[in-house]
Amino acid sequence: MVPVNQWIKIKAPATVANMVCGFDILGFAVNNPYDEMEMRFVQRAAGQASITIINIDDYNLPTDPEKNVAGAALLAMIEEYTANSIIDFSTIGFEVKINKLIKPGSGVGSSAASSAGAVVGANYLLGNPFSKDDLVRFAMNGEKVASGVKHADNIAPCIHGGVTLVRSIFPLEVIALPSPTLFVTIVHPQIEVRTADARSILKQNVQLKDAIKQWGNIAGLVAGLMKGDYDLIGRSLEDVIIEPVRSILIPGFDDLKKACKAVGALGGGISGSGPSIFFLSKEKETALAVEQEMKKLYEGLGLAHHTYVTNINQKGVEIEA
Amino acid sequence: MVPVNQWIKIKAPATVANMVCGFDILGFAVNNPYDEMEMRFVQRAAGQASITIINIDDYNLPTDPEKNVAGAALLAMIEEYTANSIIDFSTIGFEVKINKLIKPGSGVGSSAASSAGAVVGANYLLGNPFSKDDLVRFAMNGEKVASGVKHADNIAPCIHGGVTLVRSIFPLEVIALPSPTLFVTIVHPQIEVRTADARSILKQNVQLKDAIKQWGNIAGLVAGLMKGDYDLIGRSLEDVIIEPVRSILIPGFDDLKKACKAVGALGGGISGSGPSIFFLSKEKETALAVEQEMKKLYEGLGLAHHTYVTNINQKGVEIEA
Repeated sequence: MVPVNQWIKIKAPATVANMVCGFDILGFAVNNPYDEMEMRFVQRAAGQASITIINIDDYNLPTDPEKNVAGAALLAMIEEYTANSIIDFSTIGFEVKINKLIKPGSGVGSSAASSAGAVVGANYLLGNPFSKDDLVRFAMNGEKVASGVKHADNIAPCIHGGVTLVRSIFPLEVIALPSPTLFVTIVHPQIEVRTADARSILKQNVQLKDAIKQWGNIAGLVAGLMKGDYDLIGRSLEDVIIEPVRSILIPGFDDLKKACKAVGALGGGISGSGPSIFFLSKEKETALAVEQEMKKLYEGLGLAHHTYVTNINQKGVEIEA
Repeated sequence: MVPVNQWIKIKAPATVANMVCGFDILGFAVNNPYDEMEMRFVQRAAGQASITIINIDDYNLPTDPEKNVAGAALLAMIEEYTANSIIDFSTIGFEVKINKLIKPGSGVGSSAASSAGAVVGANYLLGNPFSKDDLVRFAMNGEKVASGVKHADNIAPCIHGGVTLVRSIFPLEVIALPSPTLFVTIVHPQIEVRTADARSILKQNVQLKDAIKQWGNIAGLVAGLMKGDYDLIGRSLEDVIIEPVRSILIPGFDDLKKACKAVGALGGGISGSGPSIFFLSKEKETALAVEQEMKKLYEGLGLAHHTYVTNINQKGVEIEA
């Protein structure tokens, strides 16, 4: 256990959920952007809150632990730990400083980074009593605060790093998938797409023939990642179910996709529920060319935007003590 | 090229399509049962049929090449080969003897074995001008004769061997998936389930939440096979879409499933569109215990049945010249 008042630093990566064809099950972490956090144990008087959230960015996110995604994740963790613990959480608490470098609402797992960063940090302070699967479970409480749904497709890669498969949510089962070197280009057009809205426009029924196409692609993507077969990865990055519905919320989506594939991207699509869009490339040069296409398109549309050229983060949340 | 009149022998394995969660995309070949065939080139006079089918079993299958699955597959092959060929198919033809050891209608790829065996044999006689993907395409014409639909989930493993993924039918893309040692127990209860009926009772729409569960399992199964993770394979062998509908056509299905899993099977379900049922096991002893459960159940129901204990066939159709 880390002594009271001693700060640790936390780096929590952005994540891309869905990975085109793997709606609600696949995701991966990237090296840039990432959130910076600091955390420590503090003594507290009876009646004081067990969690203090300090925002050191300008997003004005709630600091009430029950309404803050990091706070909600930590509360779930404290609840489970208290049952069989030597720590008396009535006299001790967590202080968490959050510097969000991942813009909230950008669609690259901003809320997941806060939740995951907080529980990985707290676990470190506690002497790592919990498994990664436990931490994913706790952090999902943060996702519930953010979007109303306990989903793990950002949390799992944020904590595990690399590409992850959430085979099942209840009971939770996360499988780490090996992947070859992949460069990732992300563009965040500065429009608002609320996760709840992006969920509500989805059709609750799909045609069996489309579902079959989709699971052919999912199986192809998993096989392509595990074999390191770039062409197979590219061919499998196709979504016949979610993208046709959600992409209408994102200006320029179809044109951008054509342009990015034309300069050599393996494939890509909406990151999570958007508005960010990502493309995967085998070579860094291609990833940079993709970035140019993204800038050209959104400059042409007169839409403020931000781009990242990065690669897959294999470590997940990192602690610097 | 093999000289005219010289017979070759062909061994074409049974196959299990769907593999529980992978409806229309996954399948694997088994070492037992298999069809035996013989084939040769023959000279023919103008006006004589290019393909002569000789049944040496008692199933009384059609010998008209257009109505016989092996014949239909060969006709598709001849058509494509004739376009750019040195062989004049107006003076030469194929003679095919078929001894079906895989009972037609049993649900373990009986028609696929005939179609695949015929085109692999013909390709050998011709000096192997065609790729395996070409052969799968030709053989799918046999499946169309048998069930009205050009599907490849039996043909692909029959030709490639092992476990195969049909990522896409048009254009055809077959991916060979590595797999650990797996024992297979099959029971064929002697009832008739027509493939066309088994297709027609399926719902054309599925709930998105069920589709998500299904593709989690498909991704888990592919990852489990490639990692050699038996527990993951077992957990992923779950079908929430097709099995609940189709299993009502198969007497005793639910009880059998419980009994086979109770003695240690990893998992299993309907083979293709049934009526055969298969279970996978890590150990041969378990596969034999599963066979006992199958016999006990169908003896109890007073239903004639046949069982096989075998393993995954890694070679596909074999030629003995």
